[in-house]
Amino acid sequence: MTTKTPGGYCGKILRVNLSTLKTAVEEPEEIFYRLYFGGSGFTGYYLLKELKPGIDPLSPENKLIFSTGILTSVPTAGSGRNGAGAKSPLTGAWGDAQAGGFWGAELKRAGWDAIIVEGKADKPVYLWIKDTKAEIRDAAHLWGRLTADVERQIREELGDDKIRVAQTGPAGEKLVRIAGIVNDINRYYGRCGLGAVMGSKMLKAIAVRGHKPVKLADKDKVLSLSRQIAGVVKQRLGQFTQYGTAAGVLGLNTMGILPTRNFQQGQFEKVEEISGPKLTETLLVARDNCYACGVNCKRVVEVGAPYNVERAYGGPEYESIAALGSLCGVGDLKAICQANQTCNANGMDTISVGTTIAFAMECFENGLLTREDTGGIDLSFGNAEAMMQVVELIAKREGIGDLLAEGNHRAAKKIGQNAMQYAMQIKGQELPMHEPRGKVGLGIGYALSPTGADHCHNMHDTEFQRPAALQGLGILEGVPPLELSAAKVRVYRAVVNWQHFRNSAILCNFLPYRQRQVVELIEGATGWTTNVLELIKVGERALAMARAFNAREGFTAKDDVLPDRLYTTFSDGPLKDQPICKDDMQEALKTYYAMAGYEPELGAPTAAKLHELDLGWVVDEIEKAGLKI
Amino acid sequence: MTTKTPGGYCGKILRVNLSTLKTAVEEPEEIFYRLYFGGSGFTGYYLLKELKPGIDPLSPENKLIFSTGILTSVPTAGSGRNGAGAKSPLTGAWGDAQAGGFWGAELKRAGWDAIIVEGKADKPVYLWIKDTKAEIRDAAHLWGRLTADVERQIREELGDDKIRVAQTGPAGEKLVRIAGIVNDINRYYGRCGLGAVMGSKMLKAIAVRGHKPVKLADKDKVLSLSRQIAGVVKQRLGQFTQYGTAAGVLGLNTMGILPTRNFQQGQFEKVEEISGPKLTETLLVARDNCYACGVNCKRVVEVGAPYNVERAYGGPEYESIAALGSLCGVGDLKAICQANQTCNANGMDTISVGTTIAFAMECFENGLLTREDTGGIDLSFGNAEAMMQVVELIAKREGIGDLLAEGNHRAAKKIGQNAMQYAMQIKGQELPMHEPRGKVGLGIGYALSPTGADHCHNMHDTEFQRPAALQGLGILEGVPPLELSAAKVRVYRAVVNWQHFRNSAILCNFLPYRQRQVVELIEGATGWTTNVLELIKVGERALAMARAFNAREGFTAKDDVLPDRLYTTFSDGPLKDQPICKDDMQEALKTYYAMAGYEPELGAPTAAKLHELDLGWVVDEIEKAGLKI
Repeated sequence: MTTKTPGGYCGKILRVNLSTLKTAVEEPEEIFYRLYFGGSGFTGYYLLKELKPGIDPLSPENKLIFSTGILTSVPTAGSGRNGAGAKSPLTGAWGDAQAGGFWGAELKRAGWDAIIVEGKADKPVYLWIKDTKAEIRDAAHLWGRLTADVERQIREELGDDKIRVAQTGPAGEKLVRIAGIVNDINRYYGRCGLGAVMGSKMLKAIAVRGHKPVKLADKDKVLSLSRQIAGVVKQRLGQFTQYGTAAGVLGLNTMGILPTRNFQQGQFEKVEEISGPKLTETLLVARDNCYACGVNCKRVVEVGAPYNVERAYGGPEYESIAALGSLCGVGDLKAICQANQTCNANGMDTISVGTTIAFAMECFENGLLTREDTGGIDLSFGNAEAMMQVVELIAKREGIGDLLAEGNHRAAKKIGQNAMQYAMQIKGQELPMHEPRGKVGLGIGYALSPTGADHCHNMHDTEFQRPAALQGLGILEGVPPLELSAAKVRVYRAVVNWQHFRNSAILCNFLPYRQRQVVELIEGATGWTTNVLELIKVGERALAMARAFNAREGFTAKDDVLPDRLYTTFSDGPLKDQPICKDDMQEALKTYYAMAGYEPELGAPTAAKLHELDLGWVVDEIEKAGLKI
Repeated sequence: MTTKTPGGYCGKILRVNLSTLKTAVEEPEEIFYRLYFGGSGFTGYYLLKELKPGIDPLSPENKLIFSTGILTSVPTAGSGRNGAGAKSPLTGAWGDAQAGGFWGAELKRAGWDAIIVEGKADKPVYLWIKDTKAEIRDAAHLWGRLTADVERQIREELGDDKIRVAQTGPAGEKLVRIAGIVNDINRYYGRCGLGAVMGSKMLKAIAVRGHKPVKLADKDKVLSLSRQIAGVVKQRLGQFTQYGTAAGVLGLNTMGILPTRNFQQGQFEKVEEISGPKLTETLLVARDNCYACGVNCKRVVEVGAPYNVERAYGGPEYESIAALGSLCGVGDLKAICQANQTCNANGMDTISVGTTIAFAMECFENGLLTREDTGGIDLSFGNAEAMMQVVELIAKREGIGDLLAEGNHRAAKKIGQNAMQYAMQIKGQELPMHEPRGKVGLGIGYALSPTGADHCHNMHDTEFQRPAALQGLGILEGVPPLELSAAKVRVYRAVVNWQHFRNSAILCNFLPYRQRQVVELIEGATGWTTNVLELIKVGERALAMARAFNAREGFTAKDDVLPDRLYTTFSDGPLKDQPICKDDMQEALKTYYAMAGYEPELGAPTAAKLHELDLGWVVDEIEKAGLKI
């Protein structure tokens, strides 16, 4: 942060200390924005710079970072995203997630790029940001209430129904480790248990209203690009508009990679019942969009009694349908919608909830959990009623829900060593609904992800086997989904560095921006002259900080492991007898460390790599922790 | 080479076997061009793929690669360049050099991207390429003749005075290890002793005439860029037009980094006498240009008796003025012009010739060479007459010239261990006229360059301390010239990867193209969609191949060393008491290996790095040689 560029790109960051109830404003110099961008980049920067190693993620010492990115609120499709990060109470590692919606853009319109929440309030509070003013308000009356109710109440008491609210739900209040943060009631910073961090700080919500139009260095350039991408959206994202992210259910099932019954199978016999078309034809009542986006991939469903699913909570994404559906053997779409609503209303990550319930079902079927443990619930695969019940119990930390609120890894530890084989998790975070056995690059990514298993900053081999998808990243040839080789590692690394850039910028994964268009967007927004080389380094830098943070927390290459089940083969389906070879995977990981410039035992960037990424200060942080890089 | 792209960018490569006197045509697929581009990239590819390790560079087993680049002959300033490469008889390492002029563009207009010369003729021959036809002709009548004479004769006998000729001179015929290849009589592939390789093959010349206009995918785009850069040339390169590369003499002297008396000093008391303005005011009779370029940085001088310098051989560049001038303590510009002409007429590298003579002068002053050794010549610093005489003797391998024709490293070995301290060389190649003590990044580059000491693919710290010069390479902040740090290594690496791209593309170093303009030029020429990330990887790939080639030839990190003199300080001048710290340099080199993904003992790319660069086949080549990477 040494170059002061008067008149250059700049912004404001709000620091909120809940222990002292004080706020402060920081104005970093331009180079800070250019190196870190926002989102994952900011999370990496603040966590590494400001957290002491080894702190309890649910203690006041943890910090919760809400951050926009340079593209957040820029008027173009995919820019309605925002990031949140903290040390994860689920994994003890780097915690990072992004959500769409409108809250992030509103925060930016209020004049803020990020909020750093420190300390812990001694009673429930919420933060009210109206343009440049930030006020910490009492939230006793909001504590324990469901998310839609909280949003309604805040808008009412502040007298402005355009206020946008990010909040933790009752689950986060109860420190459910798989609780998420939600904004706009149904857009989730789902992963890493960030809702519990917010709950631990007694921070119920952040309400925001801004009136400053977004400042663009070259408005015409941005708007021209915005029109271009809107045209592409019309041409190419029809399936998404029509069926939402659930559009993928049938295709993945056909490919044999729809996670089913806790990853025991890759095809689900009731797939038609939980498919995108089925949802659209039966329960869908509206489509919804994020800021500036015309894709309308968000669902709004309504289901009558006894499910009682209301419009406010939107409708299930692909991840939620698979996690609460096929993964639990549940083919009842109404039950899935209801469980999804329970998650949204209580502020929980549908992926971790579904994967943890599927884990519990397999334990139940194998006698490791009994009706005594479940309070009489028949927790067999396919029992939709049981699934819905347990989601509710987790949110309330009641009965079996108290155990499962810890996530599948901690729950397995408590149940006993035999249960661990059923815990589909990495570094303590539950697997999302993408199956490495049909996309082995994704498997590399599961192993390496600094948040534990994740799909949002991962590679999806099927998309990146075509040269056209890779040439913008400097790679001329694709690699087939099942190939596990150094060439695949190379593609994986390029893609994932770019994903981390995108999660710093922040731009939605679904919009098919070419790298060149992103460069122009950044230029239009900031007035900088940049290029894809600089931008991909932003992503590599964010990832490097995350891995360095994890190293400091005691994570090493030994923690970059897939659950053994992923090395077994399916007993039928298109991927029958095509297991991932464990030796090949271990070789691939070694290749990755070398390719990425990571110390191979520690699995974290070497000093030279950190210097190459302009992260000299991280070398000092790591050495202070007594690690050799 | 697996993707056949019908209608894509493609070209032809001519393979000439002088042992069998047969020629063959190869048509690589588009991806070959996109990965290797030409120039240094082609040299790396063919040497690594086709040479057996350990061959004698002067044997028929060596191959001599002439290669254009994708930008060669594209109608824009700086595109009149061409590359030549072979295993170097001077160093035994990767040999690579580029020259300007018109020959390369003519070769391309004849329809060829490169010529691979193999084997050895049993009598002198030359190659005559007229468009698609290639003919091997007798050259007995040309053998031993000076370069201007040879060009004249070839044009005459083939009846076309637009023929362009690349040739080796009498020095190359005599296997002088510091002989270069020349085209257009005065544009030199100077370094690495490539003239001796051409001589060893008994290939006197390659005469070329082409009539096919260059094919451009988007002519308008190229011409628009060409006009842009022509405008920049007018605004910014006036000094170059006015004074040629000699424009630098005075400024470098002021900075204390004009190499003087074999690098004993950095300032020369007679600097005014050999300066750019002096040359322009006294001896200059015309300026000359390369293909499509309006800079006119080339000099044409004329000096009367007794020097007898004719116009045909042009005039001295900065390198020649310093090497034959200040480095030898010679302040007589006429003598420098005459020695320059002797080098050009006989086909020798003025840098290595000057540095070797300066070495001999220091040996002479210290009693390691005597008048007996020199045949009576008083080889003291400052003796212009002696300097001119010895240049002639080297070209003829007569008297002391036979010893010095081996270059300063081999000569020092023959003179005895005490002489080695005066041999300013790295890996056996003589230092060019740039002083690391005032630009420490350049010192890193001297140590690491795969050709031994070199300035053409090196970093010049003074240019790259400004953010504006670096931002196109993804680096936001410059580093001062004297700083030796990991930050400097980072800048060095980015710059040098880009230089290797430029030497593959091939584009003149002097033209101030921004990276973005180069991307657009490439796109306009080829029809590809590319970006700076892809292009800088082309450079990194070329360099990685060079270092891998060297590793196979037995070069390791131990050979990446600077002469001890560069760690001493100047006794006066602006850099007094500011030596380069040897420990810091060694640390910087270690940082470089780590940052570049090199195995630190071998100093060559790891298997992972090679895979990252799409060079899986090189892993096999290196492993075949029994090396562990």
